[in-house]
Amino acid sequence: MNSDTSATSALSRRGFLKTSTLALGAAGLAAANSVEAAPWFSPGRNLITKDEVILFQGDSITDAGRSRDKEKTTAPNNQPGSGNGYAWLAAAELLVDRPDDGLRIFNRGISGHKVFQLAERWQADCLNLKPDLLSILIGVNDIWHSLDPRLNYKGTVEIYERDYHALVERTKRALPKTRLVVCEPFVLRCGAVTDKWFPEFDHYRAAARRVADKHHATFVPFQAMFDVAVQFAPPEHWAGDGVHPSPSGAALMAHFWVKAVSGKQ
Amino acid sequence: MNSDTSATSALSRRGFLKTSTLALGAAGLAAANSVEAAPWFSPGRNLITKDEVILFQGDSITDAGRSRDKEKTTAPNNQPGSGNGYAWLAAAELLVDRPDDGLRIFNRGISGHKVFQLAERWQADCLNLKPDLLSILIGVNDIWHSLDPRLNYKGTVEIYERDYHALVERTKRALPKTRLVVCEPFVLRCGAVTDKWFPEFDHYRAAARRVADKHHATFVPFQAMFDVAVQFAPPEHWAGDGVHPSPSGAALMAHFWVKAVSGKQ
Repeated sequence: MNSDTSATSALSRRGFLKTSTLALGAAGLAAANSVEAAPWFSPGRNLITKDEVILFQGDSITDAGRSRDKEKTTAPNNQPGSGNGYAWLAAAELLVDRPDDGLRIFNRGISGHKVFQLAERWQADCLNLKPDLLSILIGVNDIWHSLDPRLNYKGTVEIYERDYHALVERTKRALPKTRLVVCEPFVLRCGAVTDKWFPEFDHYRAAARRVADKHHATFVPFQAMFDVAVQFAPPEHWAGDGVHPSPSGAALMAHFWVKAVSGKQ
Repeated sequence: MNSDTSATSALSRRGFLKTSTLALGAAGLAAANSVEAAPWFSPGRNLITKDEVILFQGDSITDAGRSRDKEKTTAPNNQPGSGNGYAWLAAAELLVDRPDDGLRIFNRGISGHKVFQLAERWQADCLNLKPDLLSILIGVNDIWHSLDPRLNYKGTVEIYERDYHALVERTKRALPKTRLVVCEPFVLRCGAVTDKWFPEFDHYRAAARRVADKHHATFVPFQAMFDVAVQFAPPEHWAGDGVHPSPSGAALMAHFWVKAVSGKQ
């Protein structure tokens, strides 16, 4: 849900469609039918216009095996540089949808990263790219690495939220016009994801949501999405180890990410 | 492109949005921005309402390894029975989008099939299921098997079109209210797809388009989609052998299939 899309503005949107329908008959009615709301998802406004730079940031879920080759990393819109995950699939949907719009899409996710590691490389891997739209998916390692005593990582949800706020504040100071998408961290209940993740993981999700709300970012509710998806296929189908999406999981994420940034239900 | 969506009605749709925008200010403007048209894709009207049966029919591209287990085949909305291709990914997008809408989605694609083989099993695998929405993707084997002398298949584009028309006529007689989606057969220029496929393959695509137009079906332009997609990743990325989509190819197909049947740009 987008923090800009309160219940009131959602109602206004329906009102807009209803008004159009009354004025315009069958064509309007078809349009109104096509925006039937999913019960768990409220799209934001359209966030992308022509000739813009879109940047995906995050951890291994965003990285998804992208090339580190300098040429591939520097050039926008290429598959090796974009990996094989949701970021590439979302990029492909946008690019194939709008091949003439001059979009330049980059991926700078790095496997294993937590918020403080994004901060360490933020100048080179975000601010220098001057994204018009910045999408961040971070958090699963912030909890996962704290649960593994071998890694000796002392993170907490408070540190995650504090660092995440600071990262966004820094971004807004440097790039005040950049639109922000905060993706909800998610897990599937299988593989590496055991009971010991809960309820702590829910607190990380809530913290990401607070970051989105505070900074008027579009929030993409991936956990809510996967909670519905497991009604139709087991958790392992969407993410074998509970953390890293399968091709089907990544495709579903791409679909809802594009819906969220396109302002469509 | 939908045969119902002529250039005129596409203009009317833009007119509808423009009118709303003038009347409703910023909210309308955001909505108008979000329906910027892809140059190769015109969505149809919204084809799916609550409590409907959706059936995917076709060959291996639709089949995509679906279970033949009777329980899995009989139950709607399950992954093993739906395979791992575009049909499952499209089903998952719809189901997760609309979990409370009572949609029942089936896949009856069978690997290797041509139009006449759909006809042989149409009563059991289509008519008995009484789909409200029927989506067909067929044609690649109709040409492919005719190109392989070992298979001794004497099909032609005329036979393909005649049989395809007859299949749709039969469906309309039995199920006059069923909405039809005709998917464009497609190939990528790699793997098994050599120069000898052309220009013959283009004639099969044109025949599928005529079937769609004659029967007022929604046409999903998959070849047009992949022709744009190869600007951003090589043909092998989308379909290693030129015929069977990769997970990325299937995800892209699912995205545009859902757009086509949802009446959205």
